[in-house]
Amino acid sequence: MVKFFGVRELVQLLRTVGVEEFLSNLIRYIREDFLRWPKFEKSPRLASHSANGVIELMPTSDGELYSFKYVNGHPVNTQFRKLTVTAFGVLADVGSGYPLLLSEMTISTALRTAATSALAAQSLARRESRVMALIGLGAQAEFQALAFKAAMGIRKLRVFDVDPAAVAKFGINLSGSGIEVITTDSVASAVKGADIVTTATAAKRNAIILTNDMIAPGVHINAIGGDCPGKTELECGLLERGRIFVEYLPQSRVEGEIQQLSADSGITELWEVLAGKRSGRVSAADVTIFDSVGFAIEDFSLLRYLNDLTATMSLHQQIDLVPSLADPKDLFGLVRAAGLDLPRSGKVG
Amino acid sequence: MVKFFGVRELVQLLRTVGVEEFLSNLIRYIREDFLRWPKFEKSPRLASHSANGVIELMPTSDGELYSFKYVNGHPVNTQFRKLTVTAFGVLADVGSGYPLLLSEMTISTALRTAATSALAAQSLARRESRVMALIGLGAQAEFQALAFKAAMGIRKLRVFDVDPAAVAKFGINLSGSGIEVITTDSVASAVKGADIVTTATAAKRNAIILTNDMIAPGVHINAIGGDCPGKTELECGLLERGRIFVEYLPQSRVEGEIQQLSADSGITELWEVLAGKRSGRVSAADVTIFDSVGFAIEDFSLLRYLNDLTATMSLHQQIDLVPSLADPKDLFGLVRAAGLDLPRSGKVG
Repeated sequence: MVKFFGVRELVQLLRTVGVEEFLSNLIRYIREDFLRWPKFEKSPRLASHSANGVIELMPTSDGELYSFKYVNGHPVNTQFRKLTVTAFGVLADVGSGYPLLLSEMTISTALRTAATSALAAQSLARRESRVMALIGLGAQAEFQALAFKAAMGIRKLRVFDVDPAAVAKFGINLSGSGIEVITTDSVASAVKGADIVTTATAAKRNAIILTNDMIAPGVHINAIGGDCPGKTELECGLLERGRIFVEYLPQSRVEGEIQQLSADSGITELWEVLAGKRSGRVSAADVTIFDSVGFAIEDFSLLRYLNDLTATMSLHQQIDLVPSLADPKDLFGLVRAAGLDLPRSGKVG
Repeated sequence: MVKFFGVRELVQLLRTVGVEEFLSNLIRYIREDFLRWPKFEKSPRLASHSANGVIELMPTSDGELYSFKYVNGHPVNTQFRKLTVTAFGVLADVGSGYPLLLSEMTISTALRTAATSALAAQSLARRESRVMALIGLGAQAEFQALAFKAAMGIRKLRVFDVDPAAVAKFGINLSGSGIEVITTDSVASAVKGADIVTTATAAKRNAIILTNDMIAPGVHINAIGGDCPGKTELECGLLERGRIFVEYLPQSRVEGEIQQLSADSGITELWEVLAGKRSGRVSAADVTIFDSVGFAIEDFSLLRYLNDLTATMSLHQQIDLVPSLADPKDLFGLVRAAGLDLPRSGKVG
């Protein structure tokens, strides 16, 4: 039997643990895995492109556990009341090759993206940062807000979105969260006075959401919306001014903001900063930029955390994704057996 | 919601449809997909190797549907009463990127391998073939037997395995199937008088199961056990004598029997024979060899068949692998909502 977190089980888990607590723990898991970065098998995602979007497989392994995520990106979907991004993932045992855990990863991807953003900010933003601007209030926005509250003590958000309905949704979702939300009427206005600027727009092109002149010295930019070829959010001059940090350089060169820069630009991988191998922010006046596109190790960390949680909590289901056989050579025996005596998928405990 | 076939549901489906009927239909699906071979996105599998084995992802797409299979290969597993190979797979909609169906594929892989073997034999074996030798009576054996019965009218099997328990298991599983099973005490004895020879051993090395002198003119060899680097079953001289057919040449060069041959050897892809582009068997005296390693399109065909079956039968479950949202920008709303009003995974109908 394989452990299964559907949407329902994951939501129950988040409510039981608490979203901020979950994010805090997840940040710790991602940090642990980033600190042993060289141990991981890494490759750019395996993408299947089509007219409407892309379907990707993102595998990685630390030699003991293997994970992969299936994720699509279809900007056209929102026209049909579908999600742009859906995802699910599997954690497996390298020693036997058996899958251990299957999970929804649509919500989980938003969680791990927010946790990674907050982890980067812990190293790159000024420690006294208290105000964040949040540009783009789509599916990711609330998760970003709560991760920065949990990890950086951010309690004041200056927000902007072109869609008033998204602004209203965001306000409702964060009511009672302890975060003050200040709505603004432009990107420039939202950014004014912010210590951290998070861009999470769905612009499907080389957009310029942030220009160089908007950004004061000392600001940390958390750019998560520029994440595929031809989709960027930052003005090139801003990239040239800032100190840039990415997850996995070979992938970010193709998908990140830095696709706008030449291949010899000096870019640092975040794990190197966490491991003390290279410097992050050097002076309080630095503009730091985390150019995040999402990497397989972050999904690995999330699945590893979920799997560890199953040791103490029983909110998952069990599904018979692989057979259990008394005689491994007798696969056909499952089909032949007259009486149907197979374990039924179902709730644990 | 995503359709789900666990082991239990797949077994129920096989019993309802009947294994031979299922295999006959599956052969038709694979033939249809092989006939439109150039339409598919093809790549060698994405493999993660470790000390004990390998975990692979096998994606493909025809532009409308996308599929991938997760499959491991761990010969060491049988020592721990685990399966050498386990697998599961997903069919998805290319237009939206949404997953449609998740299925166990441990049993399904045995089914599609057997169906592909039988499909190849329909084109390559002599039409009057009635006796098959089956060398290696592991997890695949019964499926091979039933596929050749359904597609080629094979009703007499001459079998051999080094493990007496495997021979006994095979006899029990095929009792009442309408197939006469003749046990023999050597490979050479099993092969004698056979029109078709299927090798499906678990030899984890460059073994020589079949030698050139064992094989009479006109025999068709269905070699499914040589399927990874350093794992082969046929004597090189036999390969040089026969006309060789494979699924996907770039993959078979690395994994198949033909890893023993130089890169300029004349090899034909099976789909070319089915499409009438190249000849299969030319004379009754030809020795034909289907050097099968398994390819992603066969898994695609199986998942496509399962998905079509769900239109008329309701033996699958539904699982909430991806969320359904009224507002696709309000992913967080799932977490926030006070009342837990999410669909529960469960049986259809």
